[in-house]
Amino acid sequence: MNAPVEPGLMQATEVLQRFRTVRARSLALAAPLSPEDACVQSMPDASPIKWHLAHTSWFFETFILEAREAGFQPHHPAFRVLFNSYYNGIGEKHARANRGLITRPALDEILAYRHAIDRRIADLLAAPSPHLIALITLGLQHEQQHQELMLTDLKHLLSMNPLQPAYAADAIAPPVNPAPSRWQQFDAALTEIGYDGAGFCFDNELPRHRQFVEAFALASTLVTNGEYLEFITAGGYQDAALWLSEGWDWIKREALSCPLYWRDNAGWQEFTLRGVQALDLQAPVAHLSYFEADAYARWAGARLPTEAEWEHAAQSADFADLFGACWQWTSSSYTPYPGFATADGALGEYNGKFMVNQYVLRGGSCATPDGHARTSYRNFFPATARWQFSGLRLARS
Amino acid sequence: MNAPVEPGLMQATEVLQRFRTVRARSLALAAPLSPEDACVQSMPDASPIKWHLAHTSWFFETFILEAREAGFQPHHPAFRVLFNSYYNGIGEKHARANRGLITRPALDEILAYRHAIDRRIADLLAAPSPHLIALITLGLQHEQQHQELMLTDLKHLLSMNPLQPAYAADAIAPPVNPAPSRWQQFDAALTEIGYDGAGFCFDNELPRHRQFVEAFALASTLVTNGEYLEFITAGGYQDAALWLSEGWDWIKREALSCPLYWRDNAGWQEFTLRGVQALDLQAPVAHLSYFEADAYARWAGARLPTEAEWEHAAQSADFADLFGACWQWTSSSYTPYPGFATADGALGEYNGKFMVNQYVLRGGSCATPDGHARTSYRNFFPATARWQFSGLRLARS
Amino acid sequence: MNAPVEPGLMQATEVLQRFRTVRARSLALAAPLSPEDACVQSMPDASPIKWHLAHTSWFFETFILEAREAGFQPHHPAFRVLFNSYYNGIGEKHARANRGLITRPALDEILAYRHAIDRRIADLLAAPSPHLIALITLGLQHEQQHQELMLTDLKHLLSMNPLQPAYAADAIAPPVNPAPSRWQQFDAALTEIGYDGAGFCFDNELPRHRQFVEAFALASTLVTNGEYLEFITAGGYQDAALWLSEGWDWIKREALSCPLYWRDNAGWQEFTLRGVQALDLQAPVAHLSYFEADAYARWAGARLPTEAEWEHAAQSADFADLFGACWQWTSSSYTPYPGFATADGALGEYNGKFMVNQYVLRGGSCATPDGHARTSYRNFFPATARWQFSGLRLARS
Amino acid sequence: MNAPVEPGLMQATEVLQRFRTVRARSLALAAPLSPEDACVQSMPDASPIKWHLAHTSWFFETFILEAREAGFQPHHPAFRVLFNSYYNGIGEKHARANRGLITRPALDEILAYRHAIDRRIADLLAAPSPHLIALITLGLQHEQQHQELMLTDLKHLLSMNPLQPAYAADAIAPPVNPAPSRWQQFDAALTEIGYDGAGFCFDNELPRHRQFVEAFALASTLVTNGEYLEFITAGGYQDAALWLSEGWDWIKREALSCPLYWRDNAGWQEFTLRGVQALDLQAPVAHLSYFEADAYARWAGARLPTEAEWEHAAQSADFADLFGACWQWTSSSYTPYPGFATADGALGEYNGKFMVNQYVLRGGSCATPDGHARTSYRNFFPATARWQFSGLRLARS
Repeated sequence: MNAPVEPGLMQATEVLQRFRTVRARSLALAAPLSPEDACVQSMPDASPIKWHLAHTSWFFETFILEAREAGFQPHHPAFRVLFNSYYNGIGEKHARANRGLITRPALDEILAYRHAIDRRIADLLAAPSPHLIALITLGLQHEQQHQELMLTDLKHLLSMNPLQPAYAADAIAPPVNPAPSRWQQFDAALTEIGYDGAGFCFDNELPRHRQFVEAFALASTLVTNGEYLEFITAGGYQDAALWLSEGWDWIKREALSCPLYWRDNAGWQEFTLRGVQALDLQAPVAHLSYFEADAYARWAGARLPTEAEWEHAAQSADFADLFGACWQWTSSSYTPYPGFATADGALGEYNGKFMVNQYVLRGGSCATPDGHARTSYRNFFPATARWQFSGLRLARS
Repeated sequence: MNAPVEPGLMQATEVLQRFRTVRARSLALAAPLSPEDACVQSMPDASPIKWHLAHTSWFFETFILEAREAGFQPHHPAFRVLFNSYYNGIGEKHARANRGLITRPALDEILAYRHAIDRRIADLLAAPSPHLIALITLGLQHEQQHQELMLTDLKHLLSMNPLQPAYAADAIAPPVNPAPSRWQQFDAALTEIGYDGAGFCFDNELPRHRQFVEAFALASTLVTNGEYLEFITAGGYQDAALWLSEGWDWIKREALSCPLYWRDNAGWQEFTLRGVQALDLQAPVAHLSYFEADAYARWAGARLPTEAEWEHAAQSADFADLFGACWQWTSSSYTPYPGFATADGALGEYNGKFMVNQYVLRGGSCATPDGHARTSYRNFFPATARWQFSGLRLARS
Repeated sequence: MNAPVEPGLMQATEVLQRFRTVRARSLALAAPLSPEDACVQSMPDASPIKWHLAHTSWFFETFILEAREAGFQPHHPAFRVLFNSYYNGIGEKHARANRGLITRPALDEILAYRHAIDRRIADLLAAPSPHLIALITLGLQHEQQHQELMLTDLKHLLSMNPLQPAYAADAIAPPVNPAPSRWQQFDAALTEIGYDGAGFCFDNELPRHRQFVEAFALASTLVTNGEYLEFITAGGYQDAALWLSEGWDWIKREALSCPLYWRDNAGWQEFTLRGVQALDLQAPVAHLSYFEADAYARWAGARLPTEAEWEHAAQSADFADLFGACWQWTSSSYTPYPGFATADGALGEYNGKFMVNQYVLRGGSCATPDGHARTSYRNFFPATARWQFSGLRLARS
Repeated sequence: MNAPVEPGLMQATEVLQRFRTVRARSLALAAPLSPEDACVQSMPDASPIKWHLAHTSWFFETFILEAREAGFQPHHPAFRVLFNSYYNGIGEKHARANRGLITRPALDEILAYRHAIDRRIADLLAAPSPHLIALITLGLQHEQQHQELMLTDLKHLLSMNPLQPAYAADAIAPPVNPAPSRWQQFDAALTEIGYDGAGFCFDNELPRHRQFVEAFALASTLVTNGEYLEFITAGGYQDAALWLSEGWDWIKREALSCPLYWRDNAGWQEFTLRGVQALDLQAPVAHLSYFEADAYARWAGARLPTEAEWEHAAQSADFADLFGACWQWTSSSYTPYPGFATADGALGEYNGKFMVNQYVLRGGSCATPDGHARTSYRNFFPATARWQFSGLRLARS
């Protein structure tokens, strides 16, 4: 998780207001769903909506209420295990792949759980302290991360249904690219990356430190569906020379020939949260694996940026679509910054223990809650992950 | 499926009455369940309750309405594929392991589907014919088979929930054995097995034919939990000499040491449809695989009966617990009787295509609907299946 | 293994002569092979030739020398484990799938092992007893079974080599069918099957017992390559209606479309122990799985015989190719005969513990040593096994 | 592979001499082995010795003879496919996991193949050119890489044999650490890494480029068996807090509790190329996965160095055991240097296509041929690889 930094001068009333806003948004995301929609798990990587609603409450209960309430009593003893995601330091946890088998507690009981936790957190805030505010801030950032997952996990679930149902007619989608792409040039520089503001950041964004980047150029916009379609039409998925060896073996084994939600029904379509739609050639391509993003870049005579290049460029230039469209794969594996330190206790498991065999994505997507992402934010997924809104921005030396 | 035999003199009104009774029972079984309970699939072998409710209606729609309604229109085109279980002759089918991902159509829509099919079948019965009555009879027998699966599939789902919830306080359970077991002796005989009545039977019970059985003895009652516990205590799961080679490898690989739903919590308990209960030592042991039943029999100095022995004995002697407690594994693999013929068309896929690598169970269980089983009935499962109410009755030569 | 029956009046000198003959044939089979050919294992089901040579010697050492030699010392302590196939009663065994990793002991050391065991057995025969002779007879029958496996395992190994090397120019092959096939008719009968002679048989052929067979017909010859090719050409591998459900899933998953060693190189060819050859349309089809044999029979409007039908027919009529061409799949699963009893001790593991999920093949093949098979002989393999010389003879009711 | 750089002023006679020396060493490594030892493959990651001997010759044939011999004829057409490792640009290749099934061609034929290729390369050198010399140099560096693999693959094979045979009494082993370890301190610096000499290097060492390293310290020696044993004794393999999440799941799934070749036989022993020996507590620990190296470092209050730190330190200070003992895991994933370019054609596949999900190891091991490694050398393996001589050197910020 993160090392909460100074929350600044935020007042308890502001915190409570923010707490209510963020918590309400999770409920709003779940509102269009039936109990069945909220219960089922479509693959081990994804979690049911009900589980997300419960786990984000478990987080407040476990890391705040348990330590700070006098005479703390858990809301329900079994929830301690059921809704623990991966914190070995807390104790037992329910097997990830079995999260969808929890038909009980029912959705109503989870909503009651949320309500009770909300009330108890509000009570604690009657006597605020900087550390309490920092922990609540962390809990809300954590909840925002799960809000993005709620949308991507749900999209996967609905996509597995032969009826291809829509989530909502006005559901989020990556906006169309604003202007033609051009190369933005950067000189070699000793730069600094990592968070250095006064607000919140996750532990993996720290410490701010120096990195040297050789001269490079970065594309001003994201690769579009139309551009990616050219790669497909040119035989990109049939040319081993374009692919990393492990990626080539993987696309052949899985018989992949287009991004995750594309369907070729006498014309290319895309499954979206609004249902199946004609593929928008001007929209940024999404739901690419690292392997696909890397192969496309090679075909285009370019490459993926490193995360230092991306952050250096984002600090100093004005780019469209850094945030709000698609996460952008970088060529950087997810590793600790020099001097990285984890929090004490189970919270130390938040980010650090995943720093292997994952690649960093930068920016943010249309599913990222407003105000959640920032220039120094590090998202990360394995090279085969495709169910996030993951696209790419080209770089070259 | 089956070759429906002469429905006898049953009148259309009787058929309609029976249709309504059987169809209503499926709804009654589902009544205590939430939409979530009815939607989730706990393993590939099991199906969601909602799927059972839909598939049994699909059966009437596909094999009766489609051929007999003038201007037939499917209730919903997608249901043709979604609720086809395994009939290649009908066309595409939804992948079995993904049945639990169908959060939509919602339970309400499935109930409406059932209602519509019920009405249309009732309309057809305004002009009854022997063949129509035979097909409806088959559809109801098919639905009764699924009623048993609804209970066993649901039991498995609830058992996977750490909360170990109960289905109902008065849910079915195998009744306690009525009297001490004794050996019932049978002389060698040229006997006849297979159905020869005037009512309904499945195709796999035909034709009635001759088999020679050497002299044997059959136990008057089923093996109890108490007796099976002695086998465990004596180290039965640790002695390779008691097991078939494939069974031994399987229990070691799966780390099995007791029947499926037993829990050793400082004293043996059993998960039941009524929740977790103390193990009843007088009740018949249930939820055994073929391998466990076979190993127990060997340990007890006995063996499993063949299906011919079982049926011969059941015809001529008075046994307790033939039906209504637990299915009884036989040593007979599931094969066609001499002269066996399948129905034309997709209905021919009902039973015959499963006649390999499965073992016959005889009798019936507490989950079998009243009046469904009979002396010639052949149930069948792979040697590793444990989620049915499957126990054993000993035999010896 | 088997319950050795009365060895009759065979004299010790005859036994010794036979011992030398059988043991020499194993060496002769291995003679054309390099140490590499003799060492490698091409799949878990198959064993290296070197392992066969050692294991058959281990059998004599373990079941005869250890109990009967005064002051018995094992030839090499490690061989006790290395060359134990599956006898849990003997102790530890080397993992089956790792038999090919045993580059040492070298082939020369195994030949020395054989020689030493041969000498020690010959020494024992200076003081013969009926039980000793029975055990040696069993050991030789066991060795003959491995001689057949040596040929089929080696064929599989060589087939995996892109060079498709030949074993020998005059290697065994199923002979061409002698005459057109016709239906041989049999009336319903109470028959007896199982061994009843004065010589050797395996325990699974006992006891001789009564079975009733309804009237049936059996084909006078085996199905040929030419006939099987018609099935392929007619789309047999694309028609689900012809296949058992499990078989259909299997051939689709494994992408099977012809017998194991057929190659379609602008004309059908077959990999044989003599190398790749044009497919002989008059020769019996070999290397079929149970699933393929069953599907072919269904397509041909026939079925597989039961083992009782096969043995009843073989006792009373004159068939070509009962022995010496291909094993013939029956529809009978491999189960104990009524009254079947296993030998005491580890020898009891020989046959009985495999009596599940296997199907009986009757007759014998071109790879079966002369004089090894007989009318009551029961071979058995899982329904997916294809590397034996397994074909089929049609039956119908 | 690599982009061969200027071979300098090396004369053709020097090249021929070096060619003969390197090629002879491969034969010397294989000399103690039987044909069986040289043929078998113990796991998909490892290759048979015979395959190494052939593939290194295939490399010369494919990348030199084919382009440069007038009227080139392949030594054996089938070898083109059989001994292609992974070059998609060359055409078909034999499945990696089946390399051990190639009992033919026999070892003698492979030795003849080597001899023929040697002669043809020598003939070409009668008319040397800088490019020819560069390609031969590359082929020899490639062969040296395989010489290391021959030793580690063979060690794995022998370790799988219950007899635990030795390769040679004087086989290579990591030498004992020369002196107690101390921390060597380095200031923050803008440094340069990558090859900049006049001799040979691989393409992945280029281009030399700038990197900024924050201040750090590096241990003067490698972690020893004795130190690693303390980690085990302290419960290192039982404490999830010490492990990366993926590593923890992996060691639990594989039931790992010590380095690859350690055996706990009433006292710790280690399987070595000299056979089983008592564990030498002063020797550097070897055969660690990345996960184990990382967990040990965390337990020791330190971390793995980055490859930039390692190379920066190696350039400027005097360390024991940089080379010649064990490869040293770094925390750096294997990625292209800024400006990295691959060679044209199939040779471009040599290094670049593996740059994902692998971690860089620096230095060299006791199995690395003399003169092969250098300060800028980048070795790489997946985080689970343990069969190389892979240890660690601690770092801290």
